[in-house]
Amino acid sequence: MTITELTEKLLVGETRAIARAITKVESGAADAGELMKGVFPKTGNAMIIGITGSPGAGKSSLVDKLAMFYKDRGEKIGIICVDPSSPFSGGAILGDRIRMNILGLDKNIFIRSMATRGNLGGLSRATVDAVAILDAAGFDKVIVETVGVGQDEVEIVKTADVSVVVLVPGMGDDIQAIKAGIMEIGDVFVINKADRDGVLRTQKELESLLSLAHRPDMWTPPIVKTTATENKGIEDLSKAIESYYAFQKEGGASLTRKHAIARWRLLELLQERLLSDVLNNDGTSERLDALAMEIARKTKDPYSAVEEIVTSQ
Amino acid sequence: MTITELTEKLLVGETRAIARAITKVESGAADAGELMKGVFPKTGNAMIIGITGSPGAGKSSLVDKLAMFYKDRGEKIGIICVDPSSPFSGGAILGDRIRMNILGLDKNIFIRSMATRGNLGGLSRATVDAVAILDAAGFDKVIVETVGVGQDEVEIVKTADVSVVVLVPGMGDDIQAIKAGIMEIGDVFVINKADRDGVLRTQKELESLLSLAHRPDMWTPPIVKTTATENKGIEDLSKAIESYYAFQKEGGASLTRKHAIARWRLLELLQERLLSDVLNNDGTSERLDALAMEIARKTKDPYSAVEEIVTSQ
Repeated sequence: MTITELTEKLLVGETRAIARAITKVESGAADAGELMKGVFPKTGNAMIIGITGSPGAGKSSLVDKLAMFYKDRGEKIGIICVDPSSPFSGGAILGDRIRMNILGLDKNIFIRSMATRGNLGGLSRATVDAVAILDAAGFDKVIVETVGVGQDEVEIVKTADVSVVVLVPGMGDDIQAIKAGIMEIGDVFVINKADRDGVLRTQKELESLLSLAHRPDMWTPPIVKTTATENKGIEDLSKAIESYYAFQKEGGASLTRKHAIARWRLLELLQERLLSDVLNNDGTSERLDALAMEIARKTKDPYSAVEEIVTSQ
Repeated sequence: MTITELTEKLLVGETRAIARAITKVESGAADAGELMKGVFPKTGNAMIIGITGSPGAGKSSLVDKLAMFYKDRGEKIGIICVDPSSPFSGGAILGDRIRMNILGLDKNIFIRSMATRGNLGGLSRATVDAVAILDAAGFDKVIVETVGVGQDEVEIVKTADVSVVVLVPGMGDDIQAIKAGIMEIGDVFVINKADRDGVLRTQKELESLLSLAHRPDMWTPPIVKTTATENKGIEDLSKAIESYYAFQKEGGASLTRKHAIARWRLLELLQERLLSDVLNNDGTSERLDALAMEIARKTKDPYSAVEEIVTSQ
């Protein structure tokens, strides 16, 4: 299939074409750029929802229930789960496979896990491209779910229209929760597993943390309580998401945010391109291996090694 | 102070010189490369311990207690806390400031938080450089503590001699804990807050997860129970760390691991260097802003924009 054909098929929402296109951007295929050039002008219609929080917060269940809620309203929902590769196994993910088997049966829900980190990094770039593909393919909502709170995850969540941070009762115990750096990216906060003890305390702590933060857009993030496993609070969550979406559309802050996102994306893409241009030169990869061995043996320092590679280009 | 003077001072362990050198690598100063060329040949004596786990697992307390334990044995300990910047505030971290005021009073403990992510990324590179500086400065142990389980955090932990993953009872509830991708990087596992309910269940779940994983080096990671706030289990943890350290030194797998680390580090550094060379060209930054605005307005796609920047170099 040519890229033009693939693009045409994905733009009308063909599931297999969508999956194939995402694989292309994920693997950094040579024609991924050409594909994205066709996809990009068709984006901008979906609402992009980023959902993040610590492992164990119940994000997957929450995302599943939210997707079902939207589906029942007649919408099409795309879900991208960002999951840094397991460094040894390459990241086969049992949990996601199970989810995909259940949710994936519904033709109005597309779920995909982005687990592979290529040689050149690029997971964030690939994720943003995958979101654009789903947007262009006509999904009404695209939900990006990130595991963990690492710096790339934070960047990814920032590219969403609405960012949701999921907490659980009891996490406020620890100053670590503040340090996680996720407090200030949440447009909406969820206290999930709200049937557990300590909800009120977590809520109070969260409120006082939020009152300390000052957002440039003056938005006060709502706090929603959910019990995803029992399907409770999902409608409230959807309303909170809508309210921020409407707020930011009105505020005109939208273009500033889009500019910041575009700039970040451009830098990611540029960095990946520059490195791949160098690595694609004949012999560079072998050279890199040899230099890495010198570094490992301490006969050369990494800075001098980089100098050598750069000057030999 | 010249770089030569700075290097001399840090190599004899002067605290202010060490702090200054770390600031240089963190900010990506022009002479950071020169500094690291002097530092690098003096590294390789410290034991590098990576400690990771979810927010709320009590990593900070555990690291503090472990540092005090080593200090009481007459050792010098360096601690690097990796903390992705808060995207809005730039990441002032109350908790760490408190810790630094307490631990920092001791001249045998150096603690530093790496929170700033530069324009070009580079937090992982800066962290690895900071660890090398402490190693060269004569610290016996260097502990790298990472918040969260993002992909950069995983990479950073992989550069340690011994990686410790911290869990808390109850986390095993959720398949998310498996997905976090931290299971397979742990050489040693800690169940902290072991005074809480559910320790046995977490231990059983962890044991069965570990029995499924197969490590290339055939090591069976020990599971240590601690209650860091009450200083319990710290000596057991130190023994578990020593046992893996001895195992991997013996195994000869050490050079393979060091080669993999050196290669990753070289790629990080190369990528940063290539991007900075482009951005330092006159007018590139303004150009980037203008292109980002075109992308935000959807009059250009990011791939074509990158093409323009690359071909104009």
